[in-house]
Amino acid sequence: MASPLRFTGDTLELLDQTRLPGEEVWLRCERPEQVADAIRRLAVRGAPAIGVTAAYGLVLAADGSFEEAARLLASTRPTAVNLSWAVEQGRQVYARARDSGEDPAAVLRAWADGLARRQEEADRLMAEHAAALFAAGSRVYTHCNTGGLATAGSGTALGAIEHAWGRGLVGEVWVGETRPLLQGARLTAWELEQAGIPFRVVTDSSAAALMARGEVDLVVVGADRIARNGDVANKIGTYGLAVLAERHDIPLHVVAPLSTVDLDTLSGADIPIEERDPSEVTGGSPALNLAFDVTPHDLVASIVTEAGVIEPPYESSLERAVRSQSLA
Amino acid sequence: MASPLRFTGDTLELLDQTRLPGEEVWLRCERPEQVADAIRRLAVRGAPAIGVTAAYGLVLAADGSFEEAARLLASTRPTAVNLSWAVEQGRQVYARARDSGEDPAAVLRAWADGLARRQEEADRLMAEHAAALFAAGSRVYTHCNTGGLATAGSGTALGAIEHAWGRGLVGEVWVGETRPLLQGARLTAWELEQAGIPFRVVTDSSAAALMARGEVDLVVVGADRIARNGDVANKIGTYGLAVLAERHDIPLHVVAPLSTVDLDTLSGADIPIEERDPSEVTGGSPALNLAFDVTPHDLVASIVTEAGVIEPPYESSLERAVRSQSLA
Repeated sequence: MASPLRFTGDTLELLDQTRLPGEEVWLRCERPEQVADAIRRLAVRGAPAIGVTAAYGLVLAADGSFEEAARLLASTRPTAVNLSWAVEQGRQVYARARDSGEDPAAVLRAWADGLARRQEEADRLMAEHAAALFAAGSRVYTHCNTGGLATAGSGTALGAIEHAWGRGLVGEVWVGETRPLLQGARLTAWELEQAGIPFRVVTDSSAAALMARGEVDLVVVGADRIARNGDVANKIGTYGLAVLAERHDIPLHVVAPLSTVDLDTLSGADIPIEERDPSEVTGGSPALNLAFDVTPHDLVASIVTEAGVIEPPYESSLERAVRSQSLA
Repeated sequence: MASPLRFTGDTLELLDQTRLPGEEVWLRCERPEQVADAIRRLAVRGAPAIGVTAAYGLVLAADGSFEEAARLLASTRPTAVNLSWAVEQGRQVYARARDSGEDPAAVLRAWADGLARRQEEADRLMAEHAAALFAAGSRVYTHCNTGGLATAGSGTALGAIEHAWGRGLVGEVWVGETRPLLQGARLTAWELEQAGIPFRVVTDSSAAALMARGEVDLVVVGADRIARNGDVANKIGTYGLAVLAERHDIPLHVVAPLSTVDLDTLSGADIPIEERDPSEVTGGSPALNLAFDVTPHDLVASIVTEAGVIEPPYESSLERAVRSQSLA
């Protein structure tokens, strides 16, 4: 799985995902403003990946206006909680380093590397836990992109699918193209092709017909923020998939690291939903471009995290998982 | 409302809808093969419009290999029943003209003109009947294109929306962009802008979020074939909209002329669903490109035809409407 970022010490190189799959162009960011810009225009995207990216953005800010950079990075995208979670951790790391007379840049670098390593480890564990949700030859529908490009590890939902494929548990993957920016048709298709996994892309509005024809055994998606009660914010279209899956008695599973769970957000109603530029949707007509939607917890069969497969009632199970992790 | 076709006696001119809204290019068809090609590649589309187009295609075939042309035209698209319905009528008109020694070309021309006029009249009546489904300031969601471009009259679902707008019954129109060919974002947006009706385009997968936010009062769509039991084949995505509408207690209404009702098709399971080229969806990845889906009748609040607003149980009400029309 291609990693979408590499840090060289004074430069963060980001694979420009807006150019994939046609071109593999690497952006060189030497200042946190460049990192913020790359996040904002989706050159790097995926909740875990933008968390790690922001962490390296703070490393680049260690010798400059740190707090200004932290605020800028945190403001780029409102929905994914991994971003503000990483920035808040970075702030504390920076303050402790400064207070104890250590070199903030070196301490932040070690912290960011650790964050990236833990994300890789979380991805690996999620994939192992998620295998229990597949049966031999499962036909799985997924939405948006949740592979290595989205996490800087092996991926969340797509990482789980790839792992399950390796164990003979995947027959075919249905890839929702994911309008308007086609992360499914561009990025997920690219990753699946590289992995040699059979797939077909469909328009997002084909999911209902596929389910009615009995061509989908399970739906697996990622998440940008999970509220305390288990409501899940994810790429626009996820909520519709969840309603359709319920009608056809197909389970919808969410695969996301615990850094995506925000216990301070009580329910989906409290999750800010990013509205992006209408021009991403049309060539000039008025448009509403909601980037995410909220799937209520009663439509989520399970949430797979590095701590295991979490099941309802989420109010208690999610909090238990998060607390256990902070103690570990 | 722009008419997408004009017949000059020896040439059928078709507005190439694949080029809209950027360019208004008229195709000149002098042979039925050219008409068939235009239907196949969606230069003209919309169930009623391709019925009328095929009728004029038969006029062009009157002095040549009529039956060959009839078979070719009928084979271009399998789902919309208006096409085979028009071709079958044309066959009978041709046979009667020949048997009675009349000029088949003149008789077919008069028949095709009559078909077009009756479609216009049906559109006008549907719009009037459908007004009863709107309340003041209704926010209506629609899918694909069902305006004058799709019927050669004033439209089915979109014609009803425009009529309701004129009576103060429409607050805003949500236009699903309708991937892969964007008939919503290209054609419906173009028609709504010309009519001065406020609208916003959304990606197809935004419908669920809009409904959850309480921003949709009713869903109005057209149809390509309606089975005897009220199951409705329409543009891919309609079935998903119907499931979502039901979850949010929003009515979904179908507006379609009686020529779209096929009493010989007992249920949606018997409707052939066109699969189009994967290249319409992606730039090279494997894809499945279903052009239509089937909405089961229990998700359809009403079917508005020129004979009035038809309600469940459709098994009896649809047949009654069709029989009353054939007697008229």
